[in-house]
Amino acid sequence: MSYKYAYNTRDIQFILKEWLPLDEVLSYDHFGGNYSREDVDLILEQVRKVAEEVVAPTAQDGESIGARWEAGKVYIPPSFAAAHRFLQDQGWGASNFDVEREGTLPFTILGLVWEILSAANPAIMAYVANAGPVARVIQLYASEELKQKFLPNLLTGVWGGAMGMTEPTAGSDVGDLLSKAFPTEIPGLYKIKGQKVFITAGDRDDVENVIHLYLARVQGAAPGTKGLSLFILPKYWVNDDGTLEDNDVQCIGIEHKMGLKGSATTQLIMGDNDNCRAWLIGNPPDEKGVGQGIMQMFNMMNEARLDTGRLSVAVAANAYWNAKDYGRDRIQGRLLTNPKAGRVSINKHEDVKRMYMLSKATTEACRALLSRCYFFEDAREFAPDKERREWAQNKLDMLTPLCKAYPSDEVWGLVAESLQSYGGYGYCEEYPAANAARDCKIWSIWEGTNFIQSMDLIGRKWTQGKGVIFEGILKEVEEFIAANKDKGGEREKEFEILEKALAAYRSIQATIAGYARSDKLGLMAVYARRILTTTAQLYCGYLLMDQALIASSRMKELSPDNHDYNFYLGKVLSARYYLNNVVPNVWHVAELIEIGDTSVLDAPDAVFDF
Amino acid sequence: MSYKYAYNTRDIQFILKEWLPLDEVLSYDHFGGNYSREDVDLILEQVRKVAEEVVAPTAQDGESIGARWEAGKVYIPPSFAAAHRFLQDQGWGASNFDVEREGTLPFTILGLVWEILSAANPAIMAYVANAGPVARVIQLYASEELKQKFLPNLLTGVWGGAMGMTEPTAGSDVGDLLSKAFPTEIPGLYKIKGQKVFITAGDRDDVENVIHLYLARVQGAAPGTKGLSLFILPKYWVNDDGTLEDNDVQCIGIEHKMGLKGSATTQLIMGDNDNCRAWLIGNPPDEKGVGQGIMQMFNMMNEARLDTGRLSVAVAANAYWNAKDYGRDRIQGRLLTNPKAGRVSINKHEDVKRMYMLSKATTEACRALLSRCYFFEDAREFAPDKERREWAQNKLDMLTPLCKAYPSDEVWGLVAESLQSYGGYGYCEEYPAANAARDCKIWSIWEGTNFIQSMDLIGRKWTQGKGVIFEGILKEVEEFIAANKDKGGEREKEFEILEKALAAYRSIQATIAGYARSDKLGLMAVYARRILTTTAQLYCGYLLMDQALIASSRMKELSPDNHDYNFYLGKVLSARYYLNNVVPNVWHVAELIEIGDTSVLDAPDAVFDF
Repeated sequence: MSYKYAYNTRDIQFILKEWLPLDEVLSYDHFGGNYSREDVDLILEQVRKVAEEVVAPTAQDGESIGARWEAGKVYIPPSFAAAHRFLQDQGWGASNFDVEREGTLPFTILGLVWEILSAANPAIMAYVANAGPVARVIQLYASEELKQKFLPNLLTGVWGGAMGMTEPTAGSDVGDLLSKAFPTEIPGLYKIKGQKVFITAGDRDDVENVIHLYLARVQGAAPGTKGLSLFILPKYWVNDDGTLEDNDVQCIGIEHKMGLKGSATTQLIMGDNDNCRAWLIGNPPDEKGVGQGIMQMFNMMNEARLDTGRLSVAVAANAYWNAKDYGRDRIQGRLLTNPKAGRVSINKHEDVKRMYMLSKATTEACRALLSRCYFFEDAREFAPDKERREWAQNKLDMLTPLCKAYPSDEVWGLVAESLQSYGGYGYCEEYPAANAARDCKIWSIWEGTNFIQSMDLIGRKWTQGKGVIFEGILKEVEEFIAANKDKGGEREKEFEILEKALAAYRSIQATIAGYARSDKLGLMAVYARRILTTTAQLYCGYLLMDQALIASSRMKELSPDNHDYNFYLGKVLSARYYLNNVVPNVWHVAELIEIGDTSVLDAPDAVFDF
Repeated sequence: MSYKYAYNTRDIQFILKEWLPLDEVLSYDHFGGNYSREDVDLILEQVRKVAEEVVAPTAQDGESIGARWEAGKVYIPPSFAAAHRFLQDQGWGASNFDVEREGTLPFTILGLVWEILSAANPAIMAYVANAGPVARVIQLYASEELKQKFLPNLLTGVWGGAMGMTEPTAGSDVGDLLSKAFPTEIPGLYKIKGQKVFITAGDRDDVENVIHLYLARVQGAAPGTKGLSLFILPKYWVNDDGTLEDNDVQCIGIEHKMGLKGSATTQLIMGDNDNCRAWLIGNPPDEKGVGQGIMQMFNMMNEARLDTGRLSVAVAANAYWNAKDYGRDRIQGRLLTNPKAGRVSINKHEDVKRMYMLSKATTEACRALLSRCYFFEDAREFAPDKERREWAQNKLDMLTPLCKAYPSDEVWGLVAESLQSYGGYGYCEEYPAANAARDCKIWSIWEGTNFIQSMDLIGRKWTQGKGVIFEGILKEVEEFIAANKDKGGEREKEFEILEKALAAYRSIQATIAGYARSDKLGLMAVYARRILTTTAQLYCGYLLMDQALIASSRMKELSPDNHDYNFYLGKVLSARYYLNNVVPNVWHVAELIEIGDTSVLDAPDAVFDF
């Protein structure tokens, strides 16, 4: 078995209708009054149905057939092709990235729609999700002519999209990539020579063409990332009359992965016969050899980072709900607190409930973080007020590394807890937890490893705008505490914890600043990943408390036998669990950093031979 | 690729020759003066060579061929059969469990020999390791006649052994098993009816017979574990003349697992044709219906628990050493502390070194814990002095749950760190980390889940002998601190941490005792797994510090260019890293338990629907 689909969308409905400022988003001109809050229920219900009936049935093919490579071509499972087409046609794919068309689905909603679909088959999502961000980069930065040539087929998903960054010798250090671009006599047209690896959906048989956003260095441009330019590099060259011809792009293989087997991870060679052509996006490198490529590509990369967090949440939550369904039916053991009651279903066991609660609270925390960023994506692009747009862009900048790394770090442990709750059956492929465990491990690595995200946070985001922007994130937490602490009688303990965590977080910043000024700069790298985790725990603690305040007041309006009562109770308990059991890690890590052990830095290579 | 073998045995050599009281063990009569400390090097070198040249090459067959089930029979890869035979013939298998024969290899050494072999192919080890513990139970508890019938072929590994506990409806609650034993006219001979699942190596084609230690309830015996009896249930019935005949044991399938695919996890039906016979071990249930089965079986189960910890250490350490080898050759990125030095191999990066250090320190911690228990196994059985035997048995009782659960909890995270250090290649099956990740997940589940181990620790071991025995474990730590704290100038900070952790651990015990007396008993279960982890972290912190004191004085005798210098330096750094970065978790968890959040207990089932 691959994924059994067990998703519940109530928290998503809560986020859209009761928590985020959806009315603000829907009032933006770009959405043209096409949607109202009342449409949310219908959309979620439709998507839930499609996820279950159209997408989830393809997951097994991802496992049993997988993406195949034969004689230079990639074949994806036929059911993937059909589901992909269906999703594009329903308007849940690339079309929503059309910034120039009124009436797209807000990212605030689309991000959560994609979470629901991702849970049904995470391996299919790159095929669905890539064309839109490629189109958006073209729409934002390319010439009118290129837009006309490429956008219509990208925005309908008739063509696929891919992100051409990683090379065999340049993964985390993208600035060292070797792909070269040679100018031709036609302005903007270049010949490319290079090799790319780990290109997700870089080739596929279900679409006519794949359009690569391709990073390369124009001959003579500066070294490092600043010398890179971005190109539209189509698998098949697009003639002016729309016909396609060979463009010297070869797929020489795909990776044999631990999971996510339906998703083709391709190895590509461009220009082996000196005939790979590509269009430059924007301007050629300036007189100092500085290109615009990395800035342009970050537009897509940041999208992919949110995508990674979303996939992680989807798989962790789906694993948890499957485990919970299993636990309701599986009779085993007696309760510690009431052994005389005899055998019970395992979902009654304290430790099993602990596993569920950890998954529930953490996935809700991650979903809250991501959803807020989907909202920022709409606001930074479409809010009428410039200040509001900048505000949203700043928040998104600060939180993107958390969105990518925190869920993709947590999913490994969460899926393990879900798997554990089955007992031995969790380890068997007939149940869905093993599949989830195999699928999820790539997400802490791709789109910038979680260490890269951590250094982005500490080295770049902390200091961007002289630190004022990141301080704005902490201020949000501070103001939330100040505004609500005295009201929350029953939540007094949780507010104390949040306050203590905030103070500890500031002490982490101070300690690290001290190390950076001293000869202990390396400790910044040693503790980077734990600091990213604490940042997310602090911020998510605040978000969950904010949700709990709403849930708590709703609860008071309902009688305990109302069908919604347990949902709101669950929100309150999630926040309580997360604050009392997860957020204290912030001051724990603060203490470790204060200790500042240098054994990692002091270790010569040779000690690791033993 | 399956496992690439990259094991280093220097720490094992240190444990045997410089740390554990091996001379005491070798002086026990049972070992007949067959070995001396000087033999250790030769044994380790031989085993290392066999692991690399004989065992490691079979790992790929485990993955590509796997254990297969066809028409009621299990087939293991032919290379497994050959390697199994070789190991038995070399004297590294079942023969060492012969308590009545002088000259077996001490467990102190055998445990570490098996670690070296396990790393080469963990899937093969159950075939090698099971017959011995089965033989030992028979030798300890069965009649002379049964011993003569079964021991010769078990102790040479001509027959295999298996542990028949789990049933479809009785996993963690073994006392609920349904297998029934019906007396016949012949005393001690019973007919069995029952079904078992998850029986590792319960059928195989490379040996003539498989001898099951089989738990069943004699008709009319008491309910629960106390009513169980243990039987010798051979796959093929053994006639008095040694000929074999059908015994109505059917293997109806094997599990399709996430990893460990060469290891057959069998589903068995006994007595479907009313002709499955088995010999009772020891006495029939007494007049109260109380059998001896569970006590007898625990002898093998405890062995299997150490085995699980050992497999976990072996796979985590092998994954780490493979990652380290890869990191030495892979050039990528620049150092935070010295970017101008240009690109470096990734093993120089601070965060990569952190991953290595975490694996190195944690695997050494687990190995120290396990090794000490291998020593206790020898001492409790063969020490001439009764007090010493009891002392060793008590220590072993207390530490067995830690040996099983701590390494098997940690391995999931450690292998993930090793995998992460490869970047994208870590997720590809061509590199060994993915395989390690798939293999290791079962170990937190089988042989009593890690929650069961945790409750064994808190509910049983803490209170055994009115708490005096477990207090002896804490006293060990306390006395070590008292004896060494003032000496260790350069290690002052680490001793302070150990002292603080010990005090915090005692506060955990007090808090839990308070909960047990109040209406918060359920919190004991909610925090049980974290408490087990802190117990191991405290005790392992002490063991690593003890090793570091030895290593530190050796270092002082050596010049830094001595080939052994970096080994000892590594031991000192492992201890420093573990104390400063891992052990503080003890007081972190103490604080969480003091908070005592009850959200898990307060949650009705229905909140987990959302």
